[in-house]
Amino acid sequence: MTTAADAPLSLPHSDATETLADLSEGAVLARIFPRLPTASAQLLGPGDDAAVISAPDGRFVVTTDMMIQGPDFRLAWSSPHDLGWKAAATNLSDVAAMGARPTALVVAIAAPPSTPVSVLEGLVDGLRDCCEALAPGCGVVGGDLSASDALTLAVTAFGDLEGRAPVLRSGARPGDTVALSGRLGDAGIGLELLFRLGVDSNGVPDRARANALKLTHPTEVAAQLTPVPPIASGPIAALGGATAMLDVSDGLAIDAGRIARASGVGIDFDSRCLGERIEVALGGGEDHGLLATFAPDTVLPPDFRRLGTVVAVSGSSWGTITVDGAPHDQGGWDPYRGWDGAAG
Amino acid sequence: MTTAADAPLSLPHSDATETLADLSEGAVLARIFPRLPTASAQLLGPGDDAAVISAPDGRFVVTTDMMIQGPDFRLAWSSPHDLGWKAAATNLSDVAAMGARPTALVVAIAAPPSTPVSVLEGLVDGLRDCCEALAPGCGVVGGDLSASDALTLAVTAFGDLEGRAPVLRSGARPGDTVALSGRLGDAGIGLELLFRLGVDSNGVPDRARANALKLTHPTEVAAQLTPVPPIASGPIAALGGATAMLDVSDGLAIDAGRIARASGVGIDFDSRCLGERIEVALGGGEDHGLLATFAPDTVLPPDFRRLGTVVAVSGSSWGTITVDGAPHDQGGWDPYRGWDGAAG
Repeated sequence: MTTAADAPLSLPHSDATETLADLSEGAVLARIFPRLPTASAQLLGPGDDAAVISAPDGRFVVTTDMMIQGPDFRLAWSSPHDLGWKAAATNLSDVAAMGARPTALVVAIAAPPSTPVSVLEGLVDGLRDCCEALAPGCGVVGGDLSASDALTLAVTAFGDLEGRAPVLRSGARPGDTVALSGRLGDAGIGLELLFRLGVDSNGVPDRARANALKLTHPTEVAAQLTPVPPIASGPIAALGGATAMLDVSDGLAIDAGRIARASGVGIDFDSRCLGERIEVALGGGEDHGLLATFAPDTVLPPDFRRLGTVVAVSGSSWGTITVDGAPHDQGGWDPYRGWDGAAG
Repeated sequence: MTTAADAPLSLPHSDATETLADLSEGAVLARIFPRLPTASAQLLGPGDDAAVISAPDGRFVVTTDMMIQGPDFRLAWSSPHDLGWKAAATNLSDVAAMGARPTALVVAIAAPPSTPVSVLEGLVDGLRDCCEALAPGCGVVGGDLSASDALTLAVTAFGDLEGRAPVLRSGARPGDTVALSGRLGDAGIGLELLFRLGVDSNGVPDRARANALKLTHPTEVAAQLTPVPPIASGPIAALGGATAMLDVSDGLAIDAGRIARASGVGIDFDSRCLGERIEVALGGGEDHGLLATFAPDTVLPPDFRRLGTVVAVSGSSWGTITVDGAPHDQGGWDPYRGWDGAAG
């Protein structure tokens, strides 16, 4: 992805165009390892059969997520740094949603042999910068490199509960306040803009048009391509008495429905708390905010704002989402139905 | 992959031909979850943002590995059950190579929407059966489902050191005995047979010819497609005083070289211990045995047999491999150079 024009003038041209096929796996790793962020919890890092991570409270939190070129990202829209950033951010957010502090990542990367080494360097730099910005002390402790036709990242993230109980989806109780840390709708708008205006006349993702959108709609496009989930809010919510919590990844209504279903309740949103774009707030995906519930007498932690209330419903209505008491129909994203390969 | 003839007669035909695109992600997960093996160490399993695993000694071991249709496996040769088995086995072996007991896996799977649900069920059954056979108590605690063009499995495995120090690659000392638990060469022969005879006249992997090979060369083909690494030997070696250990994945000579380089020594193999096919024993890949070193006065644990001796060499020769004192040239597998996409 790096062209000669992008490369620092002091680097020989060959460095910028070297591909994975030009180097041995060991040589690629030697280029990547020094760029990896070190985890404070790392007892043994990359280079052996496995890593060893400290888990001081005798438990660890783990989540995994795979991102694939085509269904999950397009290289015309996302830089390698963007991809590394987003792969880290989305996994860190799942750890934070348990009330845990992220401690470490392992990262498996598969790429075509023709991939410039600079793409992998960009990915790793994105992983590092995201960890440093959103979860200081969290680092990459190991990984795997493979060959593939489509660039693929599989990140597994770990967290430390620091002695606390994990905050599950199932703990919401009628009367609890429903609150959010993070933004609503921007990421969904960003994706809609990219699909509508970030493509050429044949509908193929186009770098120049995406770059133009980054200038005209910086907030929305950045929310989609380089999300900044409120990682620190997870442990804060746990300390502040959150009864349930999750990462809002598939849209507020769907994800609130998950808390409601797991808890055997309904959730009623207050339309005055959802902003002027209510449908966007409820339906936009990939917000990566933290949605939590708190007992009615709890003072909300500073990062959280009230969106609604947990309500009692009969068993057949568990999971119902209403807005000002009126039913809300949840649409939704499904990976096997929603992927348009042609637009990938 | 499942045909009507394979399916139990009591199942309606539609069940055997249902694809991922026919079902929502939730419905696919509902089909998969009951088949997952439960981990004894699981404190919170699938269904929330992340899982919680117990780490009784305050640390955990972690390794990750990705397998991709084409470079890493061919559906004409491997059944879904084979793939699940191998994905678990190779990761469990990396955990065992640290001297740890495997406790849990997380598994990210990406598949084309046209994939029959029965393929995912077969994968999961293979993961389960491998865990139950090789690492009782180890289970799958979480995962991720995505869409892709090529079937992709990313497994991350965890282990418990049970209070022991991890066995690193770097602990071999001159005079130590070099020993192996597991077989040498069969998996490499199996792969060579499959590439030479398991293909049609155009070199395309062929199911019928591979099935014929499974009858004529069952040991070699099974060693390649469904390896049975000696997982229990890892903790046993650690308890028995192993000074260094690794999983033999890229061939004995290359992997012995890794121990030797990390330890600042050389390794001399005794040709009488390498069997009649010395080059196969030294060069075959994917053996997934455990290669370990033990102080000279140590009684080898019962699963291990002596292969040679750790020798002192000057700094510029660290990592040197010799056979009966004569230099051995290490070839090697590299994921970005060794992959022939046309043969995938």
